Amino acid sequence: MGWELSPLQEERARAILQLPDILKDLSSIQFQRETLSEGNSPFADRLQSEFSSIFHQPLLRGTLGVKRSSSPKRIGVVFSGGPAPGGHNVIAGVFDAMKRLHPSSELVGFLEGPEGVIEGKYKVLDESILAPYRNQGGFDLIGSGRTKIETQEQLRASLASIERLELDGLVVIGGDDSNTNAAILSQYCKQKEKNISVVGVPKTIDGDIKNAYVSVPFGFDTACKVYAEMIGNIGRDAVSARKYYHFIKLMGRSASHITLECALSTHPNIALIGEEILAKKMSLKDVVKQISDVIVERSEKGKDYGVVLIPEGVVEFIPEVGELIIELSARLAEANSSSKEEIVNTLPPLAKSCFVSLPKKIQDQLLQERDAHGNVHVSSIESEKLFMMLVQEELSRRASYRGKFQPVSHFLGYEGRCSFPSSFDATYCYALGSVAALLVDEGVLGYMCFVGRLKGDVSSWQIGGVPLTHLMTIETRKGKEKPVIKKALVDCKSSSFITFEKERGKWACQDMYRFPGPIQFAGEKSVTDTIPMTLSLDLSEERR
Amino acid sequence: MGWELSPLQEERARAILQLPDILKDLSSIQFQRETLSEGNSPFADRLQSEFSSIFHQPLLRGTLGVKRSSSPKRIGVVFSGGPAPGGHNVIAGVFDAMKRLHPSSELVGFLEGPEGVIEGKYKVLDESILAPYRNQGGFDLIGSGRTKIETQEQLRASLASIERLELDGLVVIGGDDSNTNAAILSQYCKQKEKNISVVGVPKTIDGDIKNAYVSVPFGFDTACKVYAEMIGNIGRDAVSARKYYHFIKLMGRSASHITLECALSTHPNIALIGEEILAKKMSLKDVVKQISDVIVERSEKGKDYGVVLIPEGVVEFIPEVGELIIELSARLAEANSSSKEEIVNTLPPLAKSCFVSLPKKIQDQLLQERDAHGNVHVSSIESEKLFMMLVQEELSRRASYRGKFQPVSHFLGYEGRCSFPSSFDATYCYALGSVAALLVDEGVLGYMCFVGRLKGDVSSWQIGGVPLTHLMTIETRKGKEKPVIKKALVDCKSSSFITFEKERGKWACQDMYRFPGPIQFAGEKSVTDTIPMTLSLDLSEERR
Repeated sequence: MGWELSPLQEERARAILQLPDILKDLSSIQFQRETLSEGNSPFADRLQSEFSSIFHQPLLRGTLGVKRSSSPKRIGVVFSGGPAPGGHNVIAGVFDAMKRLHPSSELVGFLEGPEGVIEGKYKVLDESILAPYRNQGGFDLIGSGRTKIETQEQLRASLASIERLELDGLVVIGGDDSNTNAAILSQYCKQKEKNISVVGVPKTIDGDIKNAYVSVPFGFDTACKVYAEMIGNIGRDAVSARKYYHFIKLMGRSASHITLECALSTHPNIALIGEEILAKKMSLKDVVKQISDVIVERSEKGKDYGVVLIPEGVVEFIPEVGELIIELSARLAEANSSSKEEIVNTLPPLAKSCFVSLPKKIQDQLLQERDAHGNVHVSSIESEKLFMMLVQEELSRRASYRGKFQPVSHFLGYEGRCSFPSSFDATYCYALGSVAALLVDEGVLGYMCFVGRLKGDVSSWQIGGVPLTHLMTIETRKGKEKPVIKKALVDCKSSSFITFEKERGKWACQDMYRFPGPIQFAGEKSVTDTIPMTLSLDLSEERR
Repeated sequence: MGWELSPLQEERARAILQLPDILKDLSSIQFQRETLSEGNSPFADRLQSEFSSIFHQPLLRGTLGVKRSSSPKRIGVVFSGGPAPGGHNVIAGVFDAMKRLHPSSELVGFLEGPEGVIEGKYKVLDESILAPYRNQGGFDLIGSGRTKIETQEQLRASLASIERLELDGLVVIGGDDSNTNAAILSQYCKQKEKNISVVGVPKTIDGDIKNAYVSVPFGFDTACKVYAEMIGNIGRDAVSARKYYHFIKLMGRSASHITLECALSTHPNIALIGEEILAKKMSLKDVVKQISDVIVERSEKGKDYGVVLIPEGVVEFIPEVGELIIELSARLAEANSSSKEEIVNTLPPLAKSCFVSLPKKIQDQLLQERDAHGNVHVSSIESEKLFMMLVQEELSRRASYRGKFQPVSHFLGYEGRCSFPSSFDATYCYALGSVAALLVDEGVLGYMCFVGRLKGDVSSWQIGGVPLTHLMTIETRKGKEKPVIKKALVDCKSSSFITFEKERGKWACQDMYRFPGPIQFAGEKSVTDTIPMTLSLDLSEERR
């Protein structure tokens, strides 16, 4: 990098990672094919018609078998979407594995995301370039972007770049939408009878890529640990200063995975889980009442302080607010020219009355634009302040409440996306990258890499690839039905949720704050090598 | 604590700290007296009249001499003001040292700050209570508070509590104002001819207790490292996502010590230093222009992203805003009944025109109340948003600017006050606590503990006590002149500032972000045992 690095940057760059046993001798890895029953999907017909060339592919499971012989490969990698800790290790994993498979192989990094693929902007990555990025956070080695590869023109241009660079395969490191695009590109390449491998690597701090094969996307562990460090610090401040209510909004789009994970590791007084609110059909008023009840009860015990965790996507799960968001999204997508006032006037009665009941500031935030994928920009809605305002109002209506309510708002987001990957994420990403290189070597396309048995010791981790179409569902985006990789929500029947449900009553009124502290890279394994608590609770030892 | 602790909490509670050589055999420590020339202070007369009984005391320097014999002592400890990492280790240091001096000694912790002293609320602290708090963040073992001990009634009540508990001494762990109060209590006790020791321990994350003897208050190192971890993460996000300008406000009251320290360890594109702005008499417009110039230059290089650090107290240093704050403070202190409008109307012309030029939101924040010490509530002024708004305006006026300015605001504060103390702070606080116990054993009062030669290895650290009156100056508080412990500002002639000044040009336009990462407790000493960069640059090896 050419300037003084921090001591930790240097130490981490030199760190040696543990490899799963199966990845120790890459030349002996064979992939066993297992048929999957995709025909059962209610969307099978639609998926089959859109992804005719890559539908019904078998599951691939890595095993040790007879020697494979590999020819030199040229592989492209691209980051897509928001950064997540461990991305550089995926690239390092691809690089080392392809070099081990054949020393003449070459790695090309596309610059600034999918746009780099479309426009053919790249740099060749070698060991000297990669070295200072090993075990480091960020996506800055090659950058990222949110452009999608989906129109015919984008697909044509991408394929042209790939052919110009004589690539054998492309590794797409991205979230659900980016993996959907990987499927579209796979279908396009296969249909054109191009011999190009396309594989996706599950990335997102939000934790919402999760299925029978991918137990957790990379980056989730580190981001949650960074947030939990901060929440722990703030909790300790709450119980030390004894005067503030900290309302902490956590990044994570719709799903509440991050909040559940952070709650289990920090024991806040209150943690909202969007999926529970939806399941119980709680109204905004119900949620505000629930928070206020805890505040009143704590105040009666002399405790006018506390910690409240709020997932950034929670408002979508409150039925009337959710409906409002859907109705607004559809209208904003169509009618770019209509005035905001007109849009509000055409809302159905329930959505409209909900809109009118919100503070002006939140109304403005709801009317803001959507992202390129048509998703509501949930992070721009200041839900932490919404709840602060509504709770304040509710408390002022309660005659029996004599407490002093001094709320402080926080938003934890960007600080968790580019931190040094935890030991778990560093090791996991390096393994995922190795799997990606193996799948390209195998010549397959339309797959997402996975590393399984994560609860056991790293030595016993397993590897494989799952067909992207197997992970798809149909969703409405900007008013249109589209096949997309299914986003996983918090399962209210999971062990992790049930544990949270059982414990939270104690956390509410007692001060049982837990302080995870900063991520550690050296010292006792019990401190350095933990996996996400939700993963630990939800995975049986045998789960792949 | 009765519930599951995190692995790091357990590991840290068990950690063994290194002791300075001089603290290895407490029974051999003697304090050498050195005369100080307090008569030279321009405020000598005023200080002498208010602190007649404790003025002109000698400096105390710990040395190894003949055996001392100690009788059992009863010591009280109290936290005063906002929490800072390491507080629990000060208490552990007092406890262990007094027990080593005489095993029958007893430690009493006053609850919830100085109010606990006034009202006689306390708990006896023994090893089993202390054990889980060793090397942990927070002030929650006994709590803290912002009540001051200064009126005759408060002084009388405090002395009564001390006498009722038969204490030999009181250790006040606090910032500048709390140490001022320790001096007032010392004077009161001495005047009443009570044989009670009162010593202060320099605590504040803000870094503004700094003098020829105290090189740094405890807590500063850890808080800066927590903030630098987050700034580094955000910097890596800036250069990975390449789309946001992060405006990060940093806690730290008036002085810009925290911002200078964090800038040196993270290399942001811009870091404002209030003291420099004052020295150069820069107007608000000048500061906004300076920031905008960097943004425009970066944009011309294709970089529409960056990191800007803003000390929370910076607005006080901008002459016209500073004047406005002083004028408003005086008026708000006197005229509680006047309407805000009336107050604004009575402002002198320059202050008034400055007020009128500010965004409405900032106007409201300026009119908010002051704290108990009469200080402006600088943390409630959203200066990060003020600069975001003003820079946005300035950029829109520049015809040549074609960039996309997407600012994101952050405030780093509470997350740094209660985190696990760094190795430096843990060791430093434990040593400070040991010194406090020794000074009480020595029977002195009106002293602040210090530990010196911090740049060298812990083994060679030196110890002592400096008379509180020697650290005092006269300040105007709520319109009245009062003797107070002098707050240290950033010295624009210091090595640390000069280094920053020399480097920042490169940081502005290149992306030289440095990533300190999370505080580490195990592993290489180069990673775990760093001291603040400003301290390292400003302290000569020999400095005590």
